[in-house]
Amino acid sequence: MNRLVALLTDFGTNDPYAGQVAAVITAASNARVVSLTHGVPAHHIQLGAHIVDASLEFLPSGAVLLAVVDPGVGTERRGLIVRRDCRWLVGPDNGLLMPVNGDVRCWTLDRPETWRRRVAPTFHARDVFAPVAARLANFERPEWLGSPVQDPVRVDRPSACVDTPSVRGEIIHIDGFGNLITNIPAAFVQTGSMLETRVGATRIDGLARTYGDGDRPVALIGSWNLLEIAVPGGSAAERLECRIRDTVFVRHTDD
Amino acid sequence: MNRLVALLTDFGTNDPYAGQVAAVITAASNARVVSLTHGVPAHHIQLGAHIVDASLEFLPSGAVLLAVVDPGVGTERRGLIVRRDCRWLVGPDNGLLMPVNGDVRCWTLDRPETWRRRVAPTFHARDVFAPVAARLANFERPEWLGSPVQDPVRVDRPSACVDTPSVRGEIIHIDGFGNLITNIPAAFVQTGSMLETRVGATRIDGLARTYGDGDRPVALIGSWNLLEIAVPGGSAAERLECRIRDTVFVRHTDD
Amino acid sequence: MNRLVALLTDFGTNDPYAGQVAAVITAASNARVVSLTHGVPAHHIQLGAHIVDASLEFLPSGAVLLAVVDPGVGTERRGLIVRRDCRWLVGPDNGLLMPVNGDVRCWTLDRPETWRRRVAPTFHARDVFAPVAARLANFERPEWLGSPVQDPVRVDRPSACVDTPSVRGEIIHIDGFGNLITNIPAAFVQTGSMLETRVGATRIDGLARTYGDGDRPVALIGSWNLLEIAVPGGSAAERLECRIRDTVFVRHTDD
Repeated sequence: MNRLVALLTDFGTNDPYAGQVAAVITAASNARVVSLTHGVPAHHIQLGAHIVDASLEFLPSGAVLLAVVDPGVGTERRGLIVRRDCRWLVGPDNGLLMPVNGDVRCWTLDRPETWRRRVAPTFHARDVFAPVAARLANFERPEWLGSPVQDPVRVDRPSACVDTPSVRGEIIHIDGFGNLITNIPAAFVQTGSMLETRVGATRIDGLARTYGDGDRPVALIGSWNLLEIAVPGGSAAERLECRIRDTVFVRHTDD
Repeated sequence: MNRLVALLTDFGTNDPYAGQVAAVITAASNARVVSLTHGVPAHHIQLGAHIVDASLEFLPSGAVLLAVVDPGVGTERRGLIVRRDCRWLVGPDNGLLMPVNGDVRCWTLDRPETWRRRVAPTFHARDVFAPVAARLANFERPEWLGSPVQDPVRVDRPSACVDTPSVRGEIIHIDGFGNLITNIPAAFVQTGSMLETRVGATRIDGLARTYGDGDRPVALIGSWNLLEIAVPGGSAAERLECRIRDTVFVRHTDD
Repeated sequence: MNRLVALLTDFGTNDPYAGQVAAVITAASNARVVSLTHGVPAHHIQLGAHIVDASLEFLPSGAVLLAVVDPGVGTERRGLIVRRDCRWLVGPDNGLLMPVNGDVRCWTLDRPETWRRRVAPTFHARDVFAPVAARLANFERPEWLGSPVQDPVRVDRPSACVDTPSVRGEIIHIDGFGNLITNIPAAFVQTGSMLETRVGATRIDGLARTYGDGDRPVALIGSWNLLEIAVPGGSAAERLECRIRDTVFVRHTDD
């Protein structure tokens, strides 16, 4: 089977930008192209990095992820290939492609002969990253496309703060259903234990397994593998009047 | 040619949900994946079922339609394979996949070994339905993926009410151009006959063949094969101040 | 490699229209389908034509571009195949497919036997243009699908007005980042020369190479190969309170 190239950007789909990137990859390879999302809020590197983290495992081994949230396009910031979990990531060197912790192998894109001949300084996704992604999909080696680097940029991510028996995190994303996605990893929340979640003036007891019925807010481990607050059949964001960056507290009441 | 898997959901495209589903299918099969739409209003099973009805004939024979509008995800509601008009449908057992009338063959998804190993209780589209759709695209048989069921759930759909010479229906959808899509089937509206359509305070005489010129509202049989009300070059929803669920009357004036 | 069919429409993605078009092409050919955008504002032929111009070079030679912004659908307006720069374009004969200047070869679609059997008068994209695009992707010849025409419709496009040393143009598009895309071609703006750009009450000195840092508005040649006005890390449209059709002046101050 042909390799998969997945796209993740903040380009939206009302402009031809995402489509031009897909066309360039399709023209240069037999890769199958899938859009993860082009709806990352403009320039929001942190949320982009969370989506990269949450999505990587759903790409097959050997797949290429072209991820671009790139406020520094055209400046001195480098382009990067990152090797993570048997996948290839291509995009700007601004932390978007990097895991929260741990070392990964990186190459900086310094071979202009592997890019499009004419590079628009404002659109490296199309003219630099897409050709490189197509080459990786064509089984070219990263060392043909760049030089190893040891100092990739890392992005500060507001990580959940554990102060046993409490955890303090925040809302990092509100999805299209109005579910509140927090930055509190599943590992911090013991399913077996008694739990109390607070966001704003709302207190939620216990951990639900799924959205379920009823109409009271529930806390659960959602499909991002993060603590999520939802209102069954409705929008938690509207009901609880919450916004991105609002603080969320979790307390293990049986400790 | 490889089989086609079409997607129809209420996930939107600002989150990575639809993209993860496409990636899982692409990783597990050689299927060609097409998104019909991810813009069904959240939890709106009825409109989803209308779009399934209106779209099925445009999929090739043997195609798989993964349709997910699934407020009950993770609860006891079953997952389903439905065989309709030589196509395969996969999704929740809540009426979304079922025709208005008539019997169809159904299987309930009860073979966890054919799903992703780890199933998020809030995201069966990705972890249950997508792997099953990929298997159908790979020519696996439905009986390998589930057990026959005779009692699939049906969704109440507001059907147009015929009281010759009148028909009373309602607006079920307003499309991106502002056209008002009703639930009155083409079969109820004789093209040859004299016709009068009323919606709110507006009366429209006759049946147009297409949007045409002019700037007066027209009634016509649109591409959904349903009665549609449009304003040429403009938005009927804005001009006539209509909303979903507003009543529409049609009267055959020559009867 | 299979031929590429790119889509460009004003259908949006909340309705199943764009998806049905993609499904019809996929069912009738082995083409790889890419959506350039479905976000052209409804009925905005001029902007659609600009996006066609700006995107064509990113499609591989031999590719098919199905472009549909079609307020006259179902009326007497013709359907067209256009040959431009070694690509095939298919869509309505309303100027959308035509270059600003220069002659191109055109065929009018007059072979109903090459269309879908049942043609909805309101949806030629799906029932006429998509089957024709699939046939071109299958290497059928244009003369099998239509008859040559010499008088394709041209659309008036507000072209930049050169009055050396000044150029007067206008904003033709505001992209998802809030960048202001003008109709002033790169060729009118000498990078080496001293430049002054005015839009509303704002004056911008010089020509930037990219968005860069800082927070002052910049003028630059963007990825459309047109003069563009941006605010680094922000929205120029909001900051400068600009709208589509606002006038933009450029003056070469060293002439």
